[in-house]
Amino acid sequence: MNGNFTFHNPTRLHFGEDAMGHLTGELKNYGTTVMLSYGGGSIKRNGIYEAVTAALKEAGKTVVEDGGVMPNPTYEKVMHGCQLVRDNKVDLILAVGGGSTIDYAKAVSASAYCTEDAWQKYWVRQEKPECPTVAVGAVLTMVGTGSEMNGGSVITNRKEGFKRGKVFGTALFPKFAILNPRFTMTVPQYQMVAGFFDIMSHLMEQYFAGTADCTTDYINEGLMRSLIHASRIAAKDPQNYEARANIMWTATWALNTLLKCGKGGDWEVHQIGHAIGLVTDATHGMTLASVSLPYYRHVMHDGLHQFVRFAVNVWGVRPEGKSDEQVAMEGLACLESWMKEIGVVLHSKELGVTEENLEQVADAVLILPVGYRTLTRDEVVQILRESM
Amino acid sequence: MNGNFTFHNPTRLHFGEDAMGHLTGELKNYGTTVMLSYGGGSIKRNGIYEAVTAALKEAGKTVVEDGGVMPNPTYEKVMHGCQLVRDNKVDLILAVGGGSTIDYAKAVSASAYCTEDAWQKYWVRQEKPECPTVAVGAVLTMVGTGSEMNGGSVITNRKEGFKRGKVFGTALFPKFAILNPRFTMTVPQYQMVAGFFDIMSHLMEQYFAGTADCTTDYINEGLMRSLIHASRIAAKDPQNYEARANIMWTATWALNTLLKCGKGGDWEVHQIGHAIGLVTDATHGMTLASVSLPYYRHVMHDGLHQFVRFAVNVWGVRPEGKSDEQVAMEGLACLESWMKEIGVVLHSKELGVTEENLEQVADAVLILPVGYRTLTRDEVVQILRESM
Repeated sequence: MNGNFTFHNPTRLHFGEDAMGHLTGELKNYGTTVMLSYGGGSIKRNGIYEAVTAALKEAGKTVVEDGGVMPNPTYEKVMHGCQLVRDNKVDLILAVGGGSTIDYAKAVSASAYCTEDAWQKYWVRQEKPECPTVAVGAVLTMVGTGSEMNGGSVITNRKEGFKRGKVFGTALFPKFAILNPRFTMTVPQYQMVAGFFDIMSHLMEQYFAGTADCTTDYINEGLMRSLIHASRIAAKDPQNYEARANIMWTATWALNTLLKCGKGGDWEVHQIGHAIGLVTDATHGMTLASVSLPYYRHVMHDGLHQFVRFAVNVWGVRPEGKSDEQVAMEGLACLESWMKEIGVVLHSKELGVTEENLEQVADAVLILPVGYRTLTRDEVVQILRESM
Repeated sequence: MNGNFTFHNPTRLHFGEDAMGHLTGELKNYGTTVMLSYGGGSIKRNGIYEAVTAALKEAGKTVVEDGGVMPNPTYEKVMHGCQLVRDNKVDLILAVGGGSTIDYAKAVSASAYCTEDAWQKYWVRQEKPECPTVAVGAVLTMVGTGSEMNGGSVITNRKEGFKRGKVFGTALFPKFAILNPRFTMTVPQYQMVAGFFDIMSHLMEQYFAGTADCTTDYINEGLMRSLIHASRIAAKDPQNYEARANIMWTATWALNTLLKCGKGGDWEVHQIGHAIGLVTDATHGMTLASVSLPYYRHVMHDGLHQFVRFAVNVWGVRPEGKSDEQVAMEGLACLESWMKEIGVVLHSKELGVTEENLEQVADAVLILPVGYRTLTRDEVVQILRESM
């Protein structure tokens, strides 16, 4: 563990089947006007919308409806939300949904009173908000992104041709989050397992960096092992509460700033995934799944010690009598087997990547100078081609 | 993972060799009068006192000196601190030291304006503070207790004949904490390794409970593995920054409320250790070390599955061809070897437990109805006798 860092995560998380019972109490900490942001209406079919609006009513709130947040939320939608916030003097944005909805709520919070071009300021220049922001609360219905306990906000700007992440500071972390594992059980299998891989990707992208002995990596290995165990159960039996609860909790800790403490990260898989998502509008977790194996096989020799450790400590590979390369490859083979077992997409062509749009995807990839190897554009194209 | 819980940990932690640079900025969030609480004066010899007072001066604070906090802080000392707080209208208690000093600061914070008998209210009846409390900040100089990021406060009442813990809510968590691993390097070897065992005990006492699959246990295993690895290095080479940094970070996460999420705990070793500490005034971590092996061997059959898991996942015991009992015993043998390697006290007689005071110690043990087995008083005596 090296370097200096500050850890501060003030989000209050209520977890469990009775977690919704805390919502009315949380709402009392804010003013009268609440913007209720949610996605495509599934929460109206599974009873969550009713439970939330009952709590809002009990707390005496005026509700501003803001449905239709799309899976890859657009900057245009963010601008619409900002208008709603200003017109109604919203005191709290209550995001009910998965990472997309919560990411969107943070984007609206930081942009509503921003006097500059918010896209340029936050997602391009990566600056901090200087304007007043609006409190965000979350009721989580789909796991994966960890957005319920961090400052992350991934937004797609179709006009500019980019899907980009911005990490806001603690002021933009949700003030509170309600995590009821049962709420995640109505998510379709495809989205569910995509979320599982998103979690694994968060874990791996923070694991595959650095050379120092670091407590954070040991915690990360524990989270990976828990996820692998529980996801195998949940993929076959999505109604298994214990497995879904463990996965929900793992997802939060996979990306709530703990795992970056004292070490670097990689995040190139997310950049390639974002580019695929921009061009194809494919489900986020599946874009990551489709490129991870070619990516990690490509960079494996640059961070061999960590890939060996991954094989032994996460997958239980026995290293005796094998070369480091063999052990590392065996670890990635275990990763591949697990991906097949839970049923994620292994080929980007299934998501709509073609020889025709491959260069367009490559153009949209942000190349980060971190992790074990900084890619060239040619290597990005090579990895994308291998992913097809 | 089962049940419902709320996770909320708002302490802001600054970690690393430059962490002290954040102190002046943190101090600006509080009023003018700061009570500087510390122990026996070692911080005056190693430069930490000077660095802290320089930051206090830079922030323009009026300082109320409050030295002499003892390793097992007494209720009498707490009452003295309360008087200082009231007399000087203290705005912030800045605890500079290890867990004892921070525990003491929280006790003073909750008791200074308490209109009832604080000992009875908090440490006996375990009630919440209803009076105004004083903000607490921490500069950590010795690792082990995790007090820098939790609400725990262990106080010794010699008049009543008890050493008791109270867990206060987030309002009493340190608002900020400065963690510079170099500050821990001047701690004598005996206290250093006692702290290492205190960390291991916190991890084990939360691990050895429950039967459900729980992500928390996987995180716990990661922390134990990191601690075991780093403590072996640090015991031989206390100036190894990487090892000391990993241990400091592990100590924080071992007891900052994360590891109790979704499961129960045991904590009987701490109760027995507190009783030994009350009677002998021995170093806290050593009291735990002296009774852990007899305790865990005593309860092993009641939670055998978890002791098997401990052996395999934490110590790398190969289970093939062995009975569960054999695997579990082998895990505890690994624990014993590690304890010998880092050099903690294995026999309570070395701490001053004798046939003469054994009954007095047993009388002071609080028996908790948690973990895998609720002890009888006879079993407490048996474990104490085996520990000698």
